[in-house]
Amino acid sequence: MSLTDNLNTQRITLCQALAEEEGARIDALLSELRSADIAEIFGAILADDEGSSRTLALMEHLPLERRASVLGHLPDNTQRTLAEALGDEDLLMILEEMGSDERADLFNLLDEDYRQRLLRRMARRERQELKRLASYEEGTAGAIMTTDYVAIPSGMTVSQAMMRVRQTAPDAETVYQLYIVDSHGRLAGTLSLRQLMVAPPGGQIDSLMIRDVIHAPVDEVQEEVARIVARYDLLALPVVDGDARLVGIVTHDDALDVVESEATEDIHKGMSIGTLEDGVSRVPLWSLYRKRVTWLVLLVFANLFSGAGIAYFEETIAAQVALVFFLPLLIGSGGNAGAQAATLMVRGMATGEVGIKDWGKLMGREMLVAGSLGLTMALAVAPIGVMRGGEALALVVAMSMVTIVLFGSVLGMCLPFLLDHLGWDPATASAPLVTTLIDASGVLIYFGIATTILGT
Amino acid sequence: MSLTDNLNTQRITLCQALAEEEGARIDALLSELRSADIAEIFGAILADDEGSSRTLALMEHLPLERRASVLGHLPDNTQRTLAEALGDEDLLMILEEMGSDERADLFNLLDEDYRQRLLRRMARRERQELKRLASYEEGTAGAIMTTDYVAIPSGMTVSQAMMRVRQTAPDAETVYQLYIVDSHGRLAGTLSLRQLMVAPPGGQIDSLMIRDVIHAPVDEVQEEVARIVARYDLLALPVVDGDARLVGIVTHDDALDVVESEATEDIHKGMSIGTLEDGVSRVPLWSLYRKRVTWLVLLVFANLFSGAGIAYFEETIAAQVALVFFLPLLIGSGGNAGAQAATLMVRGMATGEVGIKDWGKLMGREMLVAGSLGLTMALAVAPIGVMRGGEALALVVAMSMVTIVLFGSVLGMCLPFLLDHLGWDPATASAPLVTTLIDASGVLIYFGIATTILGT
Repeated sequence: MSLTDNLNTQRITLCQALAEEEGARIDALLSELRSADIAEIFGAILADDEGSSRTLALMEHLPLERRASVLGHLPDNTQRTLAEALGDEDLLMILEEMGSDERADLFNLLDEDYRQRLLRRMARRERQELKRLASYEEGTAGAIMTTDYVAIPSGMTVSQAMMRVRQTAPDAETVYQLYIVDSHGRLAGTLSLRQLMVAPPGGQIDSLMIRDVIHAPVDEVQEEVARIVARYDLLALPVVDGDARLVGIVTHDDALDVVESEATEDIHKGMSIGTLEDGVSRVPLWSLYRKRVTWLVLLVFANLFSGAGIAYFEETIAAQVALVFFLPLLIGSGGNAGAQAATLMVRGMATGEVGIKDWGKLMGREMLVAGSLGLTMALAVAPIGVMRGGEALALVVAMSMVTIVLFGSVLGMCLPFLLDHLGWDPATASAPLVTTLIDASGVLIYFGIATTILGT
Repeated sequence: MSLTDNLNTQRITLCQALAEEEGARIDALLSELRSADIAEIFGAILADDEGSSRTLALMEHLPLERRASVLGHLPDNTQRTLAEALGDEDLLMILEEMGSDERADLFNLLDEDYRQRLLRRMARRERQELKRLASYEEGTAGAIMTTDYVAIPSGMTVSQAMMRVRQTAPDAETVYQLYIVDSHGRLAGTLSLRQLMVAPPGGQIDSLMIRDVIHAPVDEVQEEVARIVARYDLLALPVVDGDARLVGIVTHDDALDVVESEATEDIHKGMSIGTLEDGVSRVPLWSLYRKRVTWLVLLVFANLFSGAGIAYFEETIAAQVALVFFLPLLIGSGGNAGAQAATLMVRGMATGEVGIKDWGKLMGREMLVAGSLGLTMALAVAPIGVMRGGEALALVVAMSMVTIVLFGSVLGMCLPFLLDHLGWDPATASAPLVTTLIDASGVLIYFGIATTILGT
């Protein structure tokens, strides 16, 4: 909170200084701020009507390197707006200053005409590099990797390698993990700067390096890349192409961003919301509508099964209207327990903790837990059954509760595995889908038990 | 998947080699595995009956440093089991070899008697350090920080600092970010190893260092610590005590673990599941039951409000049993839309994207989106209303749909802000809670509209 408040104050001060044309004050204010914070302030200014002209004026006060860094920190929508407001000349200079991964990301946000115009003005080698990096599919290692790493040719001595590190230092994303490549550009080994620093200067890199390097193929999905970085506590993960050639590295900060954004995506999916291209407060309304409406409407139709169940038992209901009292409670409880079971599995699968091989063991565990949950909830609701309709009704309600909770939980637990087995995303087993399925089953179970015990 | 299969194979091979007492083969197998992978294999072996004796026998084959690393990678439950199976002597040696943060974590897992026994055998300074680190509250910067950092006394030259880095290298968690402290131990500045390497050897650290260091107080919550590391792309975040003295650092890999585990916690909370102390496949059944049952039972009682609403309209229902057909559909749809709205807000607040100041703007956005969602769903369901009961029923159902979806979404959107304002965790606005609240309101809205339009 205090950071946000603080940035709000800074934004107002900056805009005042701009209105009063106090250039020196703007310089001083900006020099005290970090790029991530300036990006947040610019984002807020850009949301205003005359935002882009004011932001451009403020940009003028930043040194080129900082402009590149601030632009890289902006969310996609805002980054595009600002990039389009900049002139070709300015944007080209900024692009050159950006890290290779951020450059490719920004490039992919621009429209085709603009991209062609920029490409024509670049040097050939730069153009090829950018086109290659921009071509990797979103959500893969290739799309999040940077090409600004320190590669050491196999055969160097420690002191030669150290010299190389010093030379590359200003440009590389990280100089703390070095990658040794053979004459074909293939990844041959790795060495940390720490190891290099304590090695004898005349030593051979090839005899010091670790040959068994953890790496990822360029088309690996970004979740898996982040998982590997987390599992082995890596500073960076080298990425190789189909010929085992080193083509980039994914650094720890990008892995952290992936974990954060994948978690958001998973949380949204758990409520049947599609992947948003920006934060909830910034994404266009039409997009937010589309990402929410699909499953909501599908589930309206799925809910007709509940209606059909009720229609089938209409006579039982007409004879015992008191039964309706417990309907939302029973199907709601089953839905809640089932959604819990599904969510536990989906998250376990996402973090790699559970897999299809654990299904049998997990099924046994879920039946024990869900049975106990159902019994507890039946005990809670039975007295109310007695109060509203006597012991027979209490028996119907309690039996239904146990059955619905147990059935719902097992259904919720199995659905992610089933979806995974069919090649779907297990996260499709969202709370809304699971509760809708359990609603329909719950209606049948409840009125089925009621008809049997109470008669029609 | 393939990693898991691979580790399974390795586990079986290791156990065979152990049964056949082929020591050299065990050594060879273990030397090819990484600590995180050995930890996973040991975890699987420990789950067996005779697991701990077999794991201890395998441990014997690891060099001391690797034992410490493997133990640190194990989940809490398993770590405790194994630590208790080790003798005092062995455990003390391993503890000494561990990073200071992992040592304190493991120490906190042991029972009081064991802890006292171990403390008595430690040197005084070691004992004090361990007691101090173990005393920080779980979930704070203090509990996840390490004290193995490189501190450079203010006043040193570049070459003196470089010497210090070389001396500390084997023990420090990271040598790539250096922290400069004044004579009182206060954090005075920071310098990256990269900057140090390109500086003139005779230069003064104090004139090179960055004085405005991003840092966290020792009692800062770990989510915020991870957020700062992510926001500013840090390798490590220095942690200071109340007197501004440097007391530790939180490294990027620990921040990544926090983001991962906080996401799991948030996802579980979103389904009203309490924080599990271990993975879903390993946590004791009794604990899993307790973490799920609380809210489920509370919501059974909350659901009685739906029942009460139904009881109030029993005459309307008895006169028009066809109304029940649409009940699960309408309250389910409202619940789904409301749970979506709540989830979007809770996640936005967790990532720091939205705050109470955005409430007005978000409210306007939600009303537009939810209104459109409600209209779309009403259009989908209206024809079915005509089919089952004519135009009057269709009108009731369509009007109820729009009202319930709009009301549910606004309720779902506001609840996290309200909870936050009251000092509760916004994530308490879970899908089960929101849908239960909307169920009860939906019953009143639906039958209220029905009574008005159709008469009793």
